[in-house]
Order: sequence, then structure tokens, then C-alpha cells
Amino acid sequence: MSILIVGSLAFDDIETPFGRSDNTLGGSSTYIALSASYFTDKVEMVGVVGSDFEQKHFDLLHSKNIDTKGVQKVDNGKTFRWAGRYHYDMNTRDTLDTQLNVFADFDPVVPLQYQNADFVCLGNIDPELQLKVLDQISKPKLVILDTMNFWIEGKPEELKKTLERVDIFILNDSEARLLSGDPNLVRSARIIRNMGPKTLIIKKGEHGALLFTDSGIFAAPAFPLESIFDPTGAGDTFAGGFIGHLARCETINDLEMRKAVLYGSSMASFCVEKFGTEKIAALDLLEIEDRYQSFLELSRTDN
Amino acid sequence: MSILIVGSLAFDDIETPFGRSDNTLGGSSTYIALSASYFTDKVEMVGVVGSDFEQKHFDLLHSKNIDTKGVQKVDNGKTFRWAGRYHYDMNTRDTLDTQLNVFADFDPVVPLQYQNADFVCLGNIDPELQLKVLDQISKPKLVILDTMNFWIEGKPEELKKTLERVDIFILNDSEARLLSGDPNLVRSARIIRNMGPKTLIIKKGEHGALLFTDSGIFAAPAFPLESIFDPTGAGDTFAGGFIGHLARCETINDLEMRKAVLYGSSMASFCVEKFGTEKIAALDLLEIEDRYQSFLELSRTDN
Repeated sequence: MSILIVGSLAFDDIETPFGRSDNTLGGSSTYIALSASYFTDKVEMVGVVGSDFEQKHFDLLHSKNIDTKGVQKVDNGKTFRWAGRYHYDMNTRDTLDTQLNVFADFDPVVPLQYQNADFVCLGNIDPELQLKVLDQISKPKLVILDTMNFWIEGKPEELKKTLERVDIFILNDSEARLLSGDPNLVRSARIIRNMGPKTLIIKKGEHGALLFTDSGIFAAPAFPLESIFDPTGAGDTFAGGFIGHLARCETINDLEMRKAVLYGSSMASFCVEKFGTEKIAALDLLEIEDRYQSFLELSRTDN
Repeated sequence: MSILIVGSLAFDDIETPFGRSDNTLGGSSTYIALSASYFTDKVEMVGVVGSDFEQKHFDLLHSKNIDTKGVQKVDNGKTFRWAGRYHYDMNTRDTLDTQLNVFADFDPVVPLQYQNADFVCLGNIDPELQLKVLDQISKPKLVILDTMNFWIEGKPEELKKTLERVDIFILNDSEARLLSGDPNLVRSARIIRNMGPKTLIIKKGEHGALLFTDSGIFAAPAFPLESIFDPTGAGDTFAGGFIGHLARCETINDLEMRKAVLYGSSMASFCVEKFGTEKIAALDLLEIEDRYQSFLELSRTDN
């Protein structure tokens, strides 16, 4: 199955209590694509970069068989930049700087050869852009969407319009409470699923994730890490592993959804162990499977 | 297996966003004993009450086959009282009033017929009293201890002395961070297990619980409840279900410990559905097993 990914490509300046990393390759679609690339060979990106996006960055993506023909390069433009600082507990961060640059005028164009994509993964960008992308895809089997509080507060109507066409919606617990207006996550989930997406994943950071489907609720633990180095991109990496696993399934049912959540969680647990994309750009299948088995072991209640 | 439970018997005035309940039967050992009583017929209580503790309260405990010969009744004394108010999110509460009353001079005496108890469950009371109880038991197979931030801050040395003789230690996440001095729960667990208890359970409220043993880590989810009515006693009820399941096991191994955590979680999930002990005083085995099966279903990743 092919996965079309739309989102940002960026350079990040990241500061954590353990150090800092400047000019690090980042952006939602970069994390999603790298993460998904371990599960399928058909990962296609739509996005925009400036002339400062070097060949070595494309080379990294290509080395993972990621197709970047949908990434527009704007001459004399600068790539989207984000700078942030994480607090001591790593659960909260301050955004120090955001420069949209070439992203400010981004008009996503889906190349002809991507328009039959099986899965569409709409990374965290303006819901109007997400909708523009959907309008260019003929008949996707599955549409997955990620968003953030910025769009929930800033473009609620546009977001809701987009959600009507989404199958699987991924957001975190505080975003779910914000969007639903209800502090209880079970009730929140019902309210949000009524907006369109049949399947909802609520990420709870160090407390794991909840999957809501017609078949019930699945509670995935988080991996009990002794040290979290840099949380940047963990949510996008989760989405990449999740959709990556689904893309290799013959049939998508509740059980495979559950496994996909654990594969997503496995990928996210790697992501936070190093700065930026450093760790998820250099994994092998064996260690991913090992981590997945550790996740199964965490919840095991039989012999 | 017999379980000896030491802790408070109390009357509580509870206020939640959904209503209030005054003069409600409560106290750590009351919740533990009621919860454990569904799993074994040999539950023995050591504690103290005043003359305001009526026969109907003893009758309730006796109806669950709980042995109260170890509960001293002080004539002209008043039972321990606690009053508290829960905030809107139900995760935080204010203690409005605490009256130790007969508990102020409590000197626990373990009756002769309890001194061969298999399991000893030390509810959340002064660690010096917990130690006094241990000194009166001949050779317990398993010692379980619960505590709270009040003792961690107020009597750290006494608590650490007691912990050296404890097999299973139950506390919540903020208490674990406070006792270990480390914000990371995995590192906290290692530090606390080095204080004595081989087995550690860190409760995370609405995010479930973590079990740490020599065999590894088990992550139990919380039950996704749509409405939480009153969280009072949920932690003690967890402890009761946990030790109750162990008491009916022929062999106690890592797998049974994991199941015990889910039985404890099941009992706690009932507890919060009504005020005080109302719900856990009126359960039947079938609904407990049903809830336990729902917990298994929450983490299921096979057919």
C-alpha cells in the first residue's frame, strides 16, 4: 500500500535540559515519512522547502526509499524554521521562534503519480491545506489526520469540515479536551468521533495512548524509558509507525489497529532517545521488532 | 491464606462536584478489608474506633466475613474523622478537616489468633505503628505497605526503617517522586526497591499503574470510566483487591502479581462509581470477574 504524506519539512533549534541541537532536520512530514519508511517502500511526500534544504537532506530521505517528487523547492526561499526549549520535566515546552518562510505561501500540489495513493496522512498543518490535498486524491482507502491546539483554537470550523472526511484522527489528551469541551476522555472521544472519524487515537505522552473504535477501547502503555532526551517529533513518529504498520496489512481490522498503535508507540519511544531525527533515521527492523515485543511484554497477562 | 489488615476506620465528610456525603463509613483498613473480602474469607482487622462506631457498621463488615476482633472500641471516644473536597477535575482535593480522636493514642495490639497471619497489609498510617504491628507477627509470608506524602515528608527515617521489612510497596506517582527525589518513574522505582521492597506498585490514578518486579515491568491501564463520582478510598480498594487475589493463589509468581494488579484496578474502578464504600460494599463476584475481563480486553493484542 502506498502512503502519501503531507506536512512540514523544517529546520529546528532544540534546547532540552540535556543539551541543544541547532539546524536539525525536522518537520511533521519528515518524522512521519522516516518512521513509516521502515514498514513500506511506498512513501510519498508532498511539501515545500527553501534553497537552504541541501542535497544531503534529500539523500537521507531517498536512502529510506522515500519519494520526494512532491516536495517543491523554492529558489531563494528559506525552509520553515522552529525553535523551542523543553522544561525540566520534558512534558512542557516553550516555542521560542517560528518562521513560516516558504510555508507561508505553500499551495500543495499532489503530483499525478501520487493521486491514486492508498493512504493519505495529513500531518499537522492548516486544515484548509489538508482539505486542499484531499480534494486532489481520487479515492483514498484511509485518511489519517493529525492536528494541534493552534488549529483547534484558530480554525475550528475549517478543522471540523476536514474531519468529516477523515477515517483516523490522532491528537493528544489536552487537544481532545479542547476540541470536545469535555474534561473526560471517554466522553471526549464520543464527541469527536461524532465529528466524522470512526477511529480516534488520543496520545497521553508518558502515559501511553488510547485507541477508540467501534469495537471498543484499547489502552496502550508508554515505554518506561529511564531518560528522555528530546521529545520533538515523537507524535509524528507515532503516526508514521501507526500508518506504516497498517500499510503492510492485508486486512485492516481492530486487532491490526491495536498492533499499529504499539508499532507507533515503539517508533515514538526510539525518537525521544536522541535529538531530532537522529535515532529514527538510523534504525533497523530487528530493533523495531524487539521494541514491539517489549511493548507486548509490558501488558502481558498470560504465560 | 489469611490477611491481617491494619489501618484506620473512619467517618468521612466528602464533597465532590456531583454532591456530598456526610458521616460516611471510611478509613484505609475499611476499604482494604471490604475489597479483599471478595477474594478470601480470612480477613482480619486491627484498628480502633470510638463509641460512635455503631453496631450497623460492624454488621456490615461481618456480613463480608471480616473478622473485627482486633478492632478496639474506646468508650466515650470518637472515631477518626476526615473531611475533604474534590476539585472539578477530581484529581486534586483539599483536606478540610482531620480529627484523629481515638486514633491519637492508638497502640495496635495484634490478637493472639492473628499472629500467624499469612499476609500482613499495612494501610496508610504512621510508619512507627506499622513497625509495631510487624513486631507482633511471627512469620508473615508477605508484607504489603501503603503510605502517603504526609509520612514521606514527616517521618522519612521511620518509613525507611519499616520499608526494610516490606515485600510489596504501593504508592502513587507523586509520592514515588517525593520519596526517591527523582522525577523519572523508572529510576524512582529502582531507588525505592533498593530501600527494601522487592516489588513496587506505582499508581497513576486515571493513567493506571506500574508494577516493578525482578522479572520486569507491567503496565496496567486504568478503566476508561465516563464518570468518576468519588475517588475517596480508591487506592486502598486497589490494595485490597491486589492482596485479595494473591491470597487465593496457590503460587505467587510474576503472572499472578500482574493479575492481582488488574483485580486491584477492577475493584478501584468500582469504588469511584459511588460515594464512599457504597459500591464496594455491595458487589458480587460475577461483576468483579466481568470488570476484570474488561481490563484484559483493554490491553488485548491477540485473537
